[in-house]
Amino acid sequence: MPSAAGRGQGKDKDKDKQEQPAADDYAKERYGVSPMIQSQEKPDRVLVRIKDLTQEKADEVVWVRGRVHTSRAKGKQCFLVLRQQQFNIQALVAVGQHASKQMVKFAANINKESIVDVEGVVRKAHQKIGGCTQQDVELHVQRIYVISLAEPRLPLQLDDAVRPEVEGEEDGRATVNQDTRLDNRVIDLRTSTSQAVFCLQSGICQLFRETLIRKGFVEIQTPKIISAASEGGANVFTVSYFKSSAYLAQSPQLYKQMCICADFDKVFCVGPVFRAEDSNTHRHLTEFVGLDIEMAFNYHYHEVVEEIADTLVQIFKGLQERFQTEIQTVNKQFPCEPFKFLEPTLRLEYREAVAMLREAGVEMGDEEDLSTPNEKLLGRLVKEKYDTDFYILDKYPLAVRPFYTMPDPVNPKNSNSYDMFMRGEEILSGAQRIHDPQLLTERAKHHGIDLEKIKAYIDSFRFGAPPHAGGGIGLERVTMLYLGLHNVRQTSMFPRDPKRLTP
Amino acid sequence: MPSAAGRGQGKDKDKDKQEQPAADDYAKERYGVSPMIQSQEKPDRVLVRIKDLTQEKADEVVWVRGRVHTSRAKGKQCFLVLRQQQFNIQALVAVGQHASKQMVKFAANINKESIVDVEGVVRKAHQKIGGCTQQDVELHVQRIYVISLAEPRLPLQLDDAVRPEVEGEEDGRATVNQDTRLDNRVIDLRTSTSQAVFCLQSGICQLFRETLIRKGFVEIQTPKIISAASEGGANVFTVSYFKSSAYLAQSPQLYKQMCICADFDKVFCVGPVFRAEDSNTHRHLTEFVGLDIEMAFNYHYHEVVEEIADTLVQIFKGLQERFQTEIQTVNKQFPCEPFKFLEPTLRLEYREAVAMLREAGVEMGDEEDLSTPNEKLLGRLVKEKYDTDFYILDKYPLAVRPFYTMPDPVNPKNSNSYDMFMRGEEILSGAQRIHDPQLLTERAKHHGIDLEKIKAYIDSFRFGAPPHAGGGIGLERVTMLYLGLHNVRQTSMFPRDPKRLTP
Repeated sequence: MPSAAGRGQGKDKDKDKQEQPAADDYAKERYGVSPMIQSQEKPDRVLVRIKDLTQEKADEVVWVRGRVHTSRAKGKQCFLVLRQQQFNIQALVAVGQHASKQMVKFAANINKESIVDVEGVVRKAHQKIGGCTQQDVELHVQRIYVISLAEPRLPLQLDDAVRPEVEGEEDGRATVNQDTRLDNRVIDLRTSTSQAVFCLQSGICQLFRETLIRKGFVEIQTPKIISAASEGGANVFTVSYFKSSAYLAQSPQLYKQMCICADFDKVFCVGPVFRAEDSNTHRHLTEFVGLDIEMAFNYHYHEVVEEIADTLVQIFKGLQERFQTEIQTVNKQFPCEPFKFLEPTLRLEYREAVAMLREAGVEMGDEEDLSTPNEKLLGRLVKEKYDTDFYILDKYPLAVRPFYTMPDPVNPKNSNSYDMFMRGEEILSGAQRIHDPQLLTERAKHHGIDLEKIKAYIDSFRFGAPPHAGGGIGLERVTMLYLGLHNVRQTSMFPRDPKRLTP
Repeated sequence: MPSAAGRGQGKDKDKDKQEQPAADDYAKERYGVSPMIQSQEKPDRVLVRIKDLTQEKADEVVWVRGRVHTSRAKGKQCFLVLRQQQFNIQALVAVGQHASKQMVKFAANINKESIVDVEGVVRKAHQKIGGCTQQDVELHVQRIYVISLAEPRLPLQLDDAVRPEVEGEEDGRATVNQDTRLDNRVIDLRTSTSQAVFCLQSGICQLFRETLIRKGFVEIQTPKIISAASEGGANVFTVSYFKSSAYLAQSPQLYKQMCICADFDKVFCVGPVFRAEDSNTHRHLTEFVGLDIEMAFNYHYHEVVEEIADTLVQIFKGLQERFQTEIQTVNKQFPCEPFKFLEPTLRLEYREAVAMLREAGVEMGDEEDLSTPNEKLLGRLVKEKYDTDFYILDKYPLAVRPFYTMPDPVNPKNSNSYDMFMRGEEILSGAQRIHDPQLLTERAKHHGIDLEKIKAYIDSFRFGAPPHAGGGIGLERVTMLYLGLHNVRQTSMFPRDPKRLTP
């Protein structure tokens, strides 16, 4: 496997840089550009993970594959920092028994972000190595081969991309703006912050499903191409479908409800949700991931509200327990108070929220929806009064909810519907749904909805339907708000908004 | 909560049927149509699950909510079968202390598939009750209230829908054809077979993710709306995107690969995949669920092949262990040999497969792709020779694979690519991908692909890319083939094909 140095890949543009070894180079077999790995061989060689390089491995000879994070030549030595995901280690190439002058020069000239295979001896560091995660050891390099060469100019520097904004402003050092990050997402996602954000997001999905499976829910898969826009046709993307046309689902709700009518009892799904809204805000995407729940209940929709709230609480607890490293990594760049929540979850009624807002000087009607600033203000008021970043707002005015929302049995101006909030922003919207086809028809008419278009939906309830409720959670918002980030594009790997469709 | 009998929901059309109780009916408070459950109350009442009604509960008074599966009146008695998902129990309403003549008549007249709340005493059955899952007990009804009334005419009968095809042909009893099933999916999904199929499918997803999380993979979410069709523009759905247009992703592959280039190392995703193919076969859908894997490897793509194959083996084992009831339920309607697999998984090279087929009389070229009949024949030959329903076919001819497939290092007519098969049908296609931008460019040119359209893709590899491989699994096909079913529409809750967009 180790290639003779200089067996390059015909990368002409790199010829000047990748010095050809002289014939009298005693280390010429110990470095170079490897042939492209095309699965030529299955060597026995074990590649050790950088995070496992600790003092216990001192004096062992190991092979490591990593990226060249930084390199610094200094006389007859070259210091490299090798990176692997969130971990990195200092590696030293020094002229001596194993490395020639040419080899040090070769190492010093490897472009940042290139991937290299290094053989080296693990040595205890004389003093803590600042800036590396493996502070107690360094690697004394005996062989180094380039596995994949990065181009010399990077569109952004990783160190800039993890610098806290405020530091950048104070000392004039560079940070990276959002569009540059997103345009070069492959590089931006390599930062410790991005790695931590998306590992934690993967954890949210696992915790969501783990909890629901434990509670007896069944995972379902719902179609995204649908024949009719469920809520009247606004904000929906149109798809050309063979000789006809179709729509992209704005939510899996109809299908979740059909599964309830089909006796699945408790269902959830995780999948993309599409909204053709021309909203260019910090929290809107045209495509996001919905964590959706629907559940038949016995007598009261609060049975469902409690299950959903507990599911979120289990997620928050699981993140605290399993993702402390990731939370701290993100906090280094984006400092934030730890996320607080109560058990059981605080549930306020809408009228109470309106009263709190009015007391704080806001003028609003009883049946008026919450504006975004009022939602945020309410979040602060609730935090002050109850010391929680997570709460349920229950019993929304019927007028501001969709036609399929069950009216309140006592006050017909209210409804059996609820939103859930994290740090003052909505992350879930849900309700008891109308399961009676006659009332559903009346409410659809009241909303001016074309009954012909929702016939299949209404017909789903004609053959016996249990009372049920549910809700949809926005994954990217949960990640953003749990970590105290400020833009949902930070928690979507490849965000889609009215202005961005790439990469 | 128990409503006075006759407090109907104003369902005029049902008035004739839902007999109004006479003033002299001593049981008039013990039955009737409940008001629509609008979360009026939170009663303490515990509803017992039908599957928990066993002899240990004999002589207890319980409340049960279930569907009226069948009802049969006989003199002063009415026998109901109450159903809850896959479980059912016989309930007896008989004139006596608790039930009047009118109440028996009311019970007998409840439409099938209506949902009822029943209070009753659990009694040991004198003899096994055939046709019910709870064979040792029956419920002696003391109160019965309709919670949700089904319309009197059902578009299909559940008993017909679970009848094995062959039996129907033999004795002339009805079965239900596929379009009727799909048109009335809410009812068709209530059958024991459908419940079992989709509970097992939920299990496949859990097992897939459990296994990969244990192996250190990270779950990613990839966008479905994309700006450029990745593989040349054929078979892709177009979406109108504000003032422009976009496409629906035919696979998450580009994004999985970008995550590998972004150091996530091992990733998976579960999500919809869209193919605008006008293929009307038993195994093609225009929208299906992809279980996708991508992984950086050290030296040989077989490292990845082994991980994928082991993941499938873990799924097969988990299904055997956790879903035996579901497998047996499906087998009752669709008899099938148990699914066989080897450990480690059998891996054949393409040339070996061609040799086996030729030996069986098939004429084909070395670089010719496998036709569907030849795939099936090969499956039978492999089963005979190796006694396995699952195997890997490795080293496909380069000519029949996409441009980004890594050529074989020894024979340039071959490639580092593979398919995996269950019962002779392809369920996964995968390969080592080209991670070198220069070779990728050459191969794209060779395939006549417009380089401008795949610039972002190629650029992803310019800043250091590890060698990697992966593959995509079709969820519906795995469910279908594991259970030995014959149409992928049986394993998609709401299938989409060129002719079907509803429900």
